[in-house]
Amino acid sequence: MKLSRSRCELRLKHTFAIARGSRDVSPVVIVELEHDGVIGVGEAAPSSRYGETVETVEAFLSELDFRRFQDPFQLETILNYINQVAEGNTAAKASVDIALHDWIGRRLGLPLHKYWGLDKDKTPLTSFTIGIDRPEVLEQKVREAEEFPILKVKLGGRDDEEIIRTIRKATQKPLRVDANEGWKRKEEALDKIKWLEQEGVEFIEQPMPADDLAGTAWVRERAALPLIADEDSLRLHDVSKLRGVFDGINIKLMKCTGLREALRMLHTARAFGLKVMTGCMIETSIGISAAAQFSPLIDYADLDGNLLTLNDPFDGVKVDRGKLILPDRPGIGVEKRRD
Amino acid sequence: MKLSRSRCELRLKHTFAIARGSRDVSPVVIVELEHDGVIGVGEAAPSSRYGETVETVEAFLSELDFRRFQDPFQLETILNYINQVAEGNTAAKASVDIALHDWIGRRLGLPLHKYWGLDKDKTPLTSFTIGIDRPEVLEQKVREAEEFPILKVKLGGRDDEEIIRTIRKATQKPLRVDANEGWKRKEEALDKIKWLEQEGVEFIEQPMPADDLAGTAWVRERAALPLIADEDSLRLHDVSKLRGVFDGINIKLMKCTGLREALRMLHTARAFGLKVMTGCMIETSIGISAAAQFSPLIDYADLDGNLLTLNDPFDGVKVDRGKLILPDRPGIGVEKRRD
Repeated sequence: MKLSRSRCELRLKHTFAIARGSRDVSPVVIVELEHDGVIGVGEAAPSSRYGETVETVEAFLSELDFRRFQDPFQLETILNYINQVAEGNTAAKASVDIALHDWIGRRLGLPLHKYWGLDKDKTPLTSFTIGIDRPEVLEQKVREAEEFPILKVKLGGRDDEEIIRTIRKATQKPLRVDANEGWKRKEEALDKIKWLEQEGVEFIEQPMPADDLAGTAWVRERAALPLIADEDSLRLHDVSKLRGVFDGINIKLMKCTGLREALRMLHTARAFGLKVMTGCMIETSIGISAAAQFSPLIDYADLDGNLLTLNDPFDGVKVDRGKLILPDRPGIGVEKRRD
Repeated sequence: MKLSRSRCELRLKHTFAIARGSRDVSPVVIVELEHDGVIGVGEAAPSSRYGETVETVEAFLSELDFRRFQDPFQLETILNYINQVAEGNTAAKASVDIALHDWIGRRLGLPLHKYWGLDKDKTPLTSFTIGIDRPEVLEQKVREAEEFPILKVKLGGRDDEEIIRTIRKATQKPLRVDANEGWKRKEEALDKIKWLEQEGVEFIEQPMPADDLAGTAWVRERAALPLIADEDSLRLHDVSKLRGVFDGINIKLMKCTGLREALRMLHTARAFGLKVMTGCMIETSIGISAAAQFSPLIDYADLDGNLLTLNDPFDGVKVDRGKLILPDRPGIGVEKRRD
């Protein structure tokens, strides 16, 4: 088993701004796992929120010793090994998890959704994300998102009301709001949510800073809109503390170390009666297609990270008026773009 | 897709007695799922504790309409359909789940442990069960179990002390105790457990009646031995209520509707920090081998139901000095015995 890697600078269609920062390019690391004539691909889209950069991803991947493994089917053993090499590094770990799953799917000639017993017709609609921006750019973004029946709006700052008013002037589509921990006081969060209840919003993602579970539970008792955990829901062990605090969790491969942990979290969330959302970072079609493979099991998808880029090197899951269309290709279902 | 079924009367080596009754034969239903030239096998071992008999299993299976499905790979859709045909009927449902998984494994040429990414060398030791009996038979059973390094002892009645004293005269092996809800008052349960703490016992399974979670939690606060839920841990949604009440859960295919739900329960238990045990009913090598396929993920195995019978029609997982040995055959790894 051999792992190789390369960097890719994803250029964004628009400067992407959320509550904690903005950027025009987003670097990712693409990995290839080769064994027995089959290549599986994976991706790490590191997030500074979780202490990762392309440099930390590369450093982590260099530490891994794949010569000790003879068979990518040994998922449990390989991923347990990778997990204990170092704390954190969740996007780096996810890149290997995705490549292993892709390898298995390609070796078996099975798309992962079929490998997992899922129905490809049951994929949900994905929302399309509108980052924080000036009113005229917001209007343009809403126009560009015409094809998408649901928009996800980034809030969490001083301009929240203006952003919603601008978007609501342009469209009456259902909105999902992601505050990215931006509302620091529980009273502020409650005021914003009470107001958003009147604005055709479906749910609120991560209103308060991660770890303020008491504050979030206080808000949830008083607000009508469902609350979805993102920065509070990283890995399997986080799920058990969220009952009574959130109504659902956002599972992202880059936070949770990959597909195997994602499915564990999904089943655990169901045991608790929590809704399940799947989101993403700015990613190529590798990360997005991998997550889309289990989307027949989820309630809400926000898998648009590849659509926000100009130079995605891969072709994979498609979107048709918001609906995720899984390819019939094996594994995660991607191939390199020829153009 | 076509499902056929047949009855099988399993004859027991010894009359099998637990806290709530005894028997000499144990009838099960074997199913065969045929599709596209491949046959997957499954088994229902009905338990009167959960309102099932071979007659209810057969009635439930007759209700199922498999003509609506074109592909056994559609596990999620097929099992959701089966789940909603009627409440309960968990062993009947498990028979279909096992047959579908066996079909997929055979079609892919993969043993299920490999399909799930598990290492066959990591199977645990299984205990061997000593049912309630007269002293001279208990002694004989302990001798017959010589090969097994761990014994599971059925208690839950008036003769508990005599049973343990008889077994302890014959062996110093670690014991696991299954009270099968037999201790009705929390003070009685605590007294028994306090005494068992001195007798080389590893853990206590289901000391109190199911649903007496308050009583069980009271016992757990005062007892040193771990408590494992059996009759309190049927399906996925039960797991979330057991934290602080039990230290682990016993997952049985016949209680939980099969392999897919078993894996969901296992991951949920891990999210809670619960130990995982896998047990069985009196079953052929079909049910036992199916459960053994995911045993590399569990802490404690009690997969001896086939070993208690005289006429197991199938050959599957083996036991070598207690260790479960998974066959390399595809699917659940069984074939019909020729003798």
